[in-house]
Amino acid sequence: MSLFLIRPATKDDCKDIVRLIKEMAENKRMPNGPRVDEEALQKDGFEKKPFYYCFVAELNKEELNSGIVGYVLYFFSYSTWEGRSIDVQDLYVSLQYRGRGIGSALQKRMAQEGIQNGCCRLNFTMLKQDMSSVQFYKEQGVIDLTETEGWDIFCLKKDDLFRLVEK
Amino acid sequence: MSLFLIRPATKDDCKDIVRLIKEMAENKRMPNGPRVDEEALQKDGFEKKPFYYCFVAELNKEELNSGIVGYVLYFFSYSTWEGRSIDVQDLYVSLQYRGRGIGSALQKRMAQEGIQNGCCRLNFTMLKQDMSSVQFYKEQGVIDLTETEGWDIFCLKKDDLFRLVEK
Repeated sequence: MSLFLIRPATKDDCKDIVRLIKEMAENKRMPNGPRVDEEALQKDGFEKKPFYYCFVAELNKEELNSGIVGYVLYFFSYSTWEGRSIDVQDLYVSLQYRGRGIGSALQKRMAQEGIQNGCCRLNFTMLKQDMSSVQFYKEQGVIDLTETEGWDIFCLKKDDLFRLVEK
Repeated sequence: MSLFLIRPATKDDCKDIVRLIKEMAENKRMPNGPRVDEEALQKDGFEKKPFYYCFVAELNKEELNSGIVGYVLYFFSYSTWEGRSIDVQDLYVSLQYRGRGIGSALQKRMAQEGIQNGCCRLNFTMLKQDMSSVQFYKEQGVIDLTETEGWDIFCLKKDDLFRLVEK
């Protein structure tokens, strides 16, 4: 019997997801990074229009300290060239539960979700300074589109959005 | 009176949007680039779960050759750090109708849409080889996150998704 279960997140899981987001931020030594709280996660994922989707990894009840120990948060994007894509925002497994295949299972679930939704590919962004992760994913066949094709990510921050509207 | 109108796209507009996508691809000398046809656009944007949203620029009826002459295609993304974002995939105005403020109006509509949906920012990707566009957007206050923070775009293509599922 598998020691864990991957299932779609529910509104009640948001508290645990926020706990894991904070844990991830602390691991990255950016404890003040996440500005998304439980209420925002509930509103953005489980009301009228979902802005994201999520799967959680839950330990089986037989195990002590059972609960949610990992998550993958994603959304869908679209290209007029190729159609639907699945975009993975975060994939995280709590440090003490690594090495059990939970991360791989979440990753596999994303691939299934992409295929079931007719996606042509799975996208994600990563800091190129994060050399060990970049290396890990490249070994899995992941392509760095910035390196190979020259795609950069651009953004306009909130203040500039307001300025644009007022023009 | 304004010479054009910006309005949400309807299912019936997909034929015109495909025409503009093809025109854009021809301008870029990539006529075989777009693999999305009218049927796919209808299905992906106007059935159960929308994979994208779109606004079109329509010339007023008083003008000869009236019709749809521009579009902006977008979707929403999500960050556990900052929450909701609006992501612009394409913003295109037919060559012969440029210089009338249609592109700026579509851009402004995106800023409004982002603000109305509580987004913290507007994202898009661009080929860094496209120097004139990069320069144009930078002058507008757009930040190149690949250049300034080191974010690269990674992807796993369809074959690799299937391989991952079968593992």
